Amino acid sequence: MAKKGRVFSGARPTGRQHLGNYLGAIQNYVALQRDYECVYCIVDLHALTSLTETRELRQNTYEMALEWLAAGLDPKESIIFVQSQVPQVTELHMLLSMVTPMGRLVRLPTFKEKVRQQPDNVNYGLLGYPVLMAADITLYKANVVPVGEDQAPHLEFTREIVRRFNNIYGEVLVEPQILLTQVPRVMGIDGVNKMSKSLDNHIELAATPEETRKRVMQMVTDPARKYRNDPGHPEICNVMTLHRVFASDPSQMPQIEADCRAGTIGCAEHKRMFAEDLNRALASLRARRAELAQHPQMIRDVLEDGACRAQAIARVVLREAKDAVGLP
Amino acid sequence: MAKKGRVFSGARPTGRQHLGNYLGAIQNYVALQRDYECVYCIVDLHALTSLTETRELRQNTYEMALEWLAAGLDPKESIIFVQSQVPQVTELHMLLSMVTPMGRLVRLPTFKEKVRQQPDNVNYGLLGYPVLMAADITLYKANVVPVGEDQAPHLEFTREIVRRFNNIYGEVLVEPQILLTQVPRVMGIDGVNKMSKSLDNHIELAATPEETRKRVMQMVTDPARKYRNDPGHPEICNVMTLHRVFASDPSQMPQIEADCRAGTIGCAEHKRMFAEDLNRALASLRARRAELAQHPQMIRDVLEDGACRAQAIARVVLREAKDAVGLP
Repeated sequence: MAKKGRVFSGARPTGRQHLGNYLGAIQNYVALQRDYECVYCIVDLHALTSLTETRELRQNTYEMALEWLAAGLDPKESIIFVQSQVPQVTELHMLLSMVTPMGRLVRLPTFKEKVRQQPDNVNYGLLGYPVLMAADITLYKANVVPVGEDQAPHLEFTREIVRRFNNIYGEVLVEPQILLTQVPRVMGIDGVNKMSKSLDNHIELAATPEETRKRVMQMVTDPARKYRNDPGHPEICNVMTLHRVFASDPSQMPQIEADCRAGTIGCAEHKRMFAEDLNRALASLRARRAELAQHPQMIRDVLEDGACRAQAIARVVLREAKDAVGLP
Repeated sequence: MAKKGRVFSGARPTGRQHLGNYLGAIQNYVALQRDYECVYCIVDLHALTSLTETRELRQNTYEMALEWLAAGLDPKESIIFVQSQVPQVTELHMLLSMVTPMGRLVRLPTFKEKVRQQPDNVNYGLLGYPVLMAADITLYKANVVPVGEDQAPHLEFTREIVRRFNNIYGEVLVEPQILLTQVPRVMGIDGVNKMSKSLDNHIELAATPEETRKRVMQMVTDPARKYRNDPGHPEICNVMTLHRVFASDPSQMPQIEADCRAGTIGCAEHKRMFAEDLNRALASLRARRAELAQHPQMIRDVLEDGACRAQAIARVVLREAKDAVGLP
């Protein structure tokens, strides 16, 4: 079947993935494969803008690739690779940096936010984060980039840089369309913060059923509900929110919500149900993961093959860009 | 004979070279070949930080290489190449950019000066100029970099970045020594401004003897000297300064200065003498240039061969740097 165009998306190598990564990105990556030619990149260079401790970078890259594959990214359909293994991206980044107004970068809200988060490490690469992203996208002439609302300004920025480059040097780069995706805000087991590894409030995809149960039982539900008979508030309960997503039988959810509201099902009881459904939902992913983990060389081969195929596209586009600029 | 170490130097592709380029850089490049393993780079990427009109970039690169060779750069001894043909430099630049504090770049006097010169084109690459320079130098583990006083802060900056990188990731990069070179301030034929192509006050190395004479006859000498019999002031006369450098018989210079001071030799007369000496001094360079210009493919081959040899070094150093950072 003819595909609708080329999608590019990148994610930082964060190692073992959790439910937040799965619902926020991976699930969507898998779905997009049907309609698009997909280029999925583990952006290890981008990770360096915030890291100084990089000992786990390689392992994190490997684990993320492993779980992408386990979740259904298909290396025959899609190009799956590691950013630093396609050096052309740093060349295009260099060319784009010459048409990127510095003032525009300094004013990006994401940059200001990062300066607040890492005031002692405001490095030149951090300022150039969106330039590298623009190089990632345009190096593959991606037509479509799926992004959550928070990343939309970066895409607008990429579009601007493409127009500037093309205005100066001629129509070479492709202006990508933004595919705004509803990224659910997945809360951590604390029920207060976004699920994140650094806050240790996450549930790993690769956790054992027992570990999963343990984490689920720690989940904060409705703080106002002190006793089993107190009426619950499913609309503010994180267990309920996640259960709706991972329910083995979604048709049962209205009854569970009603029972919660009526105080006829306790939080602990509900958590046990959710843990069971969650383990069931993740069972096949976990089985594939365990199987793939037996063959680490295969994962590395997938990434090497992905880098090769990415480079084949990248070389052509980079040559066009260099010709337009007038470089040998 | 064992060489003292590796020198790196880069110059922007400015096309046909003039006396200022010759005395300020090329002559020194030639001399350094005796004692050092030299890596000389035409930095076309650096040129992009200030150019938006790049139609002449390729031709300017070619002409500069041609004249470097004509002046005595020896492609068998030295590595002579074009920056953008060694893409590893953009990869190392990316890694260095992650350890370069942005505040440090913004405060460099050379950056402030550039902002004054091109307020409408303060691009991200311009801010990163010294980072790219640091990548140029460290990619070849150069021990020594010859610089004029104005570039010394950039070298200090490179040394700083090397120390930061090595502190974080281990001793990989080499901290280059600064070889402070007396760069004569070569004035243009207007006698007021530094010799420069953009001010059209220059004398090209490749000018014909007739063109050279014409330019020399236009030179401003001692403005206070109105008549032939007025006493001259050789210490402020640009013709005298340049004549000292290019004199066919330096032992005659004291007499010429004395005659000027006594008003027994006129400015026009002196210019004719200088033009003759200058043409004589440049004759063999011009002959070699004319000969080389017959074989443009040979020039391109020299640059390709240089890029190959540069890459052979660059690949090893880049691999070391990537290993240290933890990249695949």
